[in-house]
Amino acid sequence: VVINQAGPAAAQAVQAAGLGVQLLDAESEAPWAVAAQGDVLLTGPRNGWLKPPTARPAGWPGRLRWVHVTSAGVDYYPPWLWDVPQVSCSRGVAAVPIAEYVLAALLDHAKTWTSLRVHSPQQWRATFDRATHSPLALLQGQTLAWRRTPAASATAPQPPSRAPADAVQWVDSLEALLAQSDHLVLALPLTAQTHQVLNAQTLQHARPGLHLVNIARGALLDQTALLQALDDGRIARATLDVTDPEPLPEGHPLYHHPRVVLTPHLSWSAANAPALTAQKFADNLGRYVRGEALHDLVRGHGSY
Amino acid sequence: VVINQAGPAAAQAVQAAGLGVQLLDAESEAPWAVAAQGDVLLTGPRNGWLKPPTARPAGWPGRLRWVHVTSAGVDYYPPWLWDVPQVSCSRGVAAVPIAEYVLAALLDHAKTWTSLRVHSPQQWRATFDRATHSPLALLQGQTLAWRRTPAASATAPQPPSRAPADAVQWVDSLEALLAQSDHLVLALPLTAQTHQVLNAQTLQHARPGLHLVNIARGALLDQTALLQALDDGRIARATLDVTDPEPLPEGHPLYHHPRVVLTPHLSWSAANAPALTAQKFADNLGRYVRGEALHDLVRGHGSY
Repeated sequence: VVINQAGPAAAQAVQAAGLGVQLLDAESEAPWAVAAQGDVLLTGPRNGWLKPPTARPAGWPGRLRWVHVTSAGVDYYPPWLWDVPQVSCSRGVAAVPIAEYVLAALLDHAKTWTSLRVHSPQQWRATFDRATHSPLALLQGQTLAWRRTPAASATAPQPPSRAPADAVQWVDSLEALLAQSDHLVLALPLTAQTHQVLNAQTLQHARPGLHLVNIARGALLDQTALLQALDDGRIARATLDVTDPEPLPEGHPLYHHPRVVLTPHLSWSAANAPALTAQKFADNLGRYVRGEALHDLVRGHGSY
Repeated sequence: VVINQAGPAAAQAVQAAGLGVQLLDAESEAPWAVAAQGDVLLTGPRNGWLKPPTARPAGWPGRLRWVHVTSAGVDYYPPWLWDVPQVSCSRGVAAVPIAEYVLAALLDHAKTWTSLRVHSPQQWRATFDRATHSPLALLQGQTLAWRRTPAASATAPQPPSRAPADAVQWVDSLEALLAQSDHLVLALPLTAQTHQVLNAQTLQHARPGLHLVNIARGALLDQTALLQALDDGRIARATLDVTDPEPLPEGHPLYHHPRVVLTPHLSWSAANAPALTAQKFADNLGRYVRGEALHDLVRGHGSY
């Protein structure tokens, strides 16, 4: 029995997979209230996990053997979620829209895109002269820092067995990464190890002019240290799709800093997101039914 | 003898090539005044070609056997330029910056990039809700129309002998191209055949919601027909790096149309442009000295 809290797209994908499982629709109930009724739970942040009980409720884990969450990150969930044998996440379903968001951010910064528009002959001439005498930057040849492991999994980070693409380099430390990058994209989960991984100390190593892009979680950054580095000019731009908290309180300096592009946690947004999420679960459910190892297992709240 | 009107970067590239040619620096003189002094002329739009004599001057073509121009387009030059045996152009030296400009334009449109920034908690929530209920578009899966020939040359357009990349399709007509494209990039030269190739008649075939990008020449478009198609909504956006004339007169409707992004002919701008242009000439000069066929020959003003 599969308890489905992810709506009709997930039900459709499971039925289309022809796995012979029984589906129980429980979208509007608390996960711990229905845990006794199924072997597998498909759930997500909005199914009661944004304000869950601090202590493990009596009904948890019921007869659950496996929980799959519709989110990529698992920092929403309380530690007692992991009292079930297996927990897996929806890593990668937003990879394409997030990659496109990041590319837009990189080009916007490199090309000074939003400053290129003109509305009069005077602006036309002044902006043309600027681009002639101070050429626009090229993304070509710039260094982008992207992720910690080439194929992220529940295992510890380790170098890949095969050589990565020609233009990809391994870097030994966060400090070296900061020192070499023109653009640094935070695309890592929020865990005990990554909380405020960018802070006053680590940001000292940033290459002057760094463009920082955060599409993961706001708490990966010490926002006070970030503001200092932006004011110093060491960080030339921060494109922040996430902040801590969300939204920031009225009047927070990140809302109006001239070197900040702030967007409201939407880099994942794409019309095909529900279908991709549903398909990812159905594929994993097939593995579960056949007794194979599940993909995208997550070891715990603080040890991704 | 090579007459160099392109400055020290070109002189340096020619010397570095070790071809044993004699260089004559003539940057500030009219090309037709020095044509008697060399076999080869390296020149560009600003060397007197923006307002050239209508009729062929007495000194032209002098003893010139070959003219290489530093521009990619040749619509600047008068028909009598082609009274020399060979004319070649600097096609491709701005390929990377222009590709980056186009990608920025595509992402800006697809992601509604400039509308995603927020400056208050109220804007944060409203924009987040918009991206949740009306997801952002993906560039992935969209159709981009780019160029007429796979490897442009002075020969007539023809299908490539080898299959193009998987995602590339051949289209038989401009009308079919317009009907199938989400984004149409004008990257073709201005000639007698392409003058106002997009006009009231051809634009009728545009797929509703088309994004038009012009990084080539303003006169490829009938601007009155474009404004009509923008007002109709058939064209959702026009990103115009070029117009006819440049700049447009004060108050021209393209300066303030809500569906137009207008930039001042700067998509080519990159710090490495002079070096790439110089290297391209030096490579072609090597072919000339060795008696090999020149690259990027251009047949004439109206028959690229």
